[in-house]
Amino acid sequence: MEKFYIGVDLGGTNIAAGIVNENGEILFRKSVKTNLPQPEYVIEDKICNLCKDLCNENGFELGKDITSIGIGTPGNVNSETGVVGFNVNFGYIDWHLKEKIESKIPNVEVFVENDANSAVIAEVIAGCAKGCEHAVILTLGTGVGAGVIVDGKVLNGYNQSAAEIGHMVISAGGRLCNCGRKGCFERYCSATALISDTREAMLANPQSKLWKVCPNIDRVNAKTVFDANELGDETAKQVIDNYIEYLACGITNVVNIFQPEVVCLGGGVSNQEEGLLRPIQEYLDREDYARHLMKRVTLKIATFRNDAGIIGAAMLGVYNA
Amino acid sequence: MEKFYIGVDLGGTNIAAGIVNENGEILFRKSVKTNLPQPEYVIEDKICNLCKDLCNENGFELGKDITSIGIGTPGNVNSETGVVGFNVNFGYIDWHLKEKIESKIPNVEVFVENDANSAVIAEVIAGCAKGCEHAVILTLGTGVGAGVIVDGKVLNGYNQSAAEIGHMVISAGGRLCNCGRKGCFERYCSATALISDTREAMLANPQSKLWKVCPNIDRVNAKTVFDANELGDETAKQVIDNYIEYLACGITNVVNIFQPEVVCLGGGVSNQEEGLLRPIQEYLDREDYARHLMKRVTLKIATFRNDAGIIGAAMLGVYNA
Repeated sequence: MEKFYIGVDLGGTNIAAGIVNENGEILFRKSVKTNLPQPEYVIEDKICNLCKDLCNENGFELGKDITSIGIGTPGNVNSETGVVGFNVNFGYIDWHLKEKIESKIPNVEVFVENDANSAVIAEVIAGCAKGCEHAVILTLGTGVGAGVIVDGKVLNGYNQSAAEIGHMVISAGGRLCNCGRKGCFERYCSATALISDTREAMLANPQSKLWKVCPNIDRVNAKTVFDANELGDETAKQVIDNYIEYLACGITNVVNIFQPEVVCLGGGVSNQEEGLLRPIQEYLDREDYARHLMKRVTLKIATFRNDAGIIGAAMLGVYNA
Repeated sequence: MEKFYIGVDLGGTNIAAGIVNENGEILFRKSVKTNLPQPEYVIEDKICNLCKDLCNENGFELGKDITSIGIGTPGNVNSETGVVGFNVNFGYIDWHLKEKIESKIPNVEVFVENDANSAVIAEVIAGCAKGCEHAVILTLGTGVGAGVIVDGKVLNGYNQSAAEIGHMVISAGGRLCNCGRKGCFERYCSATALISDTREAMLANPQSKLWKVCPNIDRVNAKTVFDANELGDETAKQVIDNYIEYLACGITNVVNIFQPEVVCLGGGVSNQEEGLLRPIQEYLDREDYARHLMKRVTLKIATFRNDAGIIGAAMLGVYNA
């Protein structure tokens, strides 16, 4: 019999939930506004009602047809206890989320996990790294998020805060990061960094076709520079080459450290697909410490894109089964 | 009843073996020259004879009193099959070492592991990281070697080549490394790098007290610069400050990635003990991404120093029990 799982993507703006099958397909979905700030019990009730409505409206009986609710959220999560240590959006400390939801919905098991960890779980269970015992996801978005699977298990470390690969320095003494360090990977390779590099190049090159692609500099996004490159713009090419040089450097570090079977790239920038994969693969062929071995890492674009939050959370039920 | 284990440190110059107890104490030891180049069976016979002699000379019956032989060696080792994929000293490819030794010595189980991995196993079983489920060792020697324990298991990756932390770039475009990359951690933080930095500073500063400590520049070692610093030499202080800045940067990367309970420092440079631990701890207190948490990494000097090879290899029997 086919099994179904609820996944909840708990964000600061929206709480989005879906009913997901074992293949990572969302069959039904629903969301509500988070409307922060709120006391904890209000958010807990919103999650419970969302799950109940989602089931009622689509003919599922919660606690019978569906017995697993996964919740993915940014921040420091103890996935064993289901306690959210700290999440900057909500501001709660030591939020016993698993316990609270389980007490409000009978006969379900609740799993709570950091959203980057959920994303890599989704990829190894039903996505581009299916079946891999060693895999890493890097999401190139506002920052560089990361989730790591080692020997089939999420890398959490001693304090559930491991895998902050975005805060690995790759250029000592370089760009100042929000975290206080200088030269962090994410200061060169997030979508935010790429956008800021693009803007800087536009200001320095008034004749660049970047201005054609995006006449309003405030509207530059992670795609702008790739579009201008398509038009043969030299400035855009330089921005991309520089971006990819750092990205390949950071990814090669990850490969030398973990030697995973697959590295998945997600987040906005990963929409470039081959435009990223090809040059990074060439770099890996030169610099991967295991480049002479038969068994080597494969670089892929993550399967679950905008829905990674819901699907990753749902897959927690499969991962923990 | 107390249990005993044989550990074999298989190096290009010497093959050293010891009988070790569960606390990681070497009770008896013996070694022979490796005398490379040799065909594989000669080395196998040397290992077997060494283990037999060690037992005979000290009143142990091999296969009865001692049933476990661990072998630690540099290079790419598949610890599950006991096959040495490649080891640059020996030049053998796919050397079925476990199988060969087991066929020559009845009633013993043989474990083969990369030497950096053995070193961290020794530390979590009987050393400074005893009982830790998450630990990292960094050995500051000819290069920067590393072994990592995640969830109680050695990090080997998909192809048994993970944990090449020495080849994590921390200064993109920086010093050229033997591996082909530019800016690798080990090009700044190995003992070799420190010695080369010391020599360069001596040549640029003929008045430095470094010349007093070591009048013959060819004899500079990893201790020279610390000795000159003790004499109040400003040049030495600058070399050390620069060295520690990079070392702390790389260690903080390791902490942000793994969040281990303990990071152990081994190798020649680690003899400086507090002179290293104190400034790196200060750096971690500023830059560790988990610096605000209660549970944080502890930085320690590795327990097993010059004998880490033998003890680590012996502890493979405990680790795999």
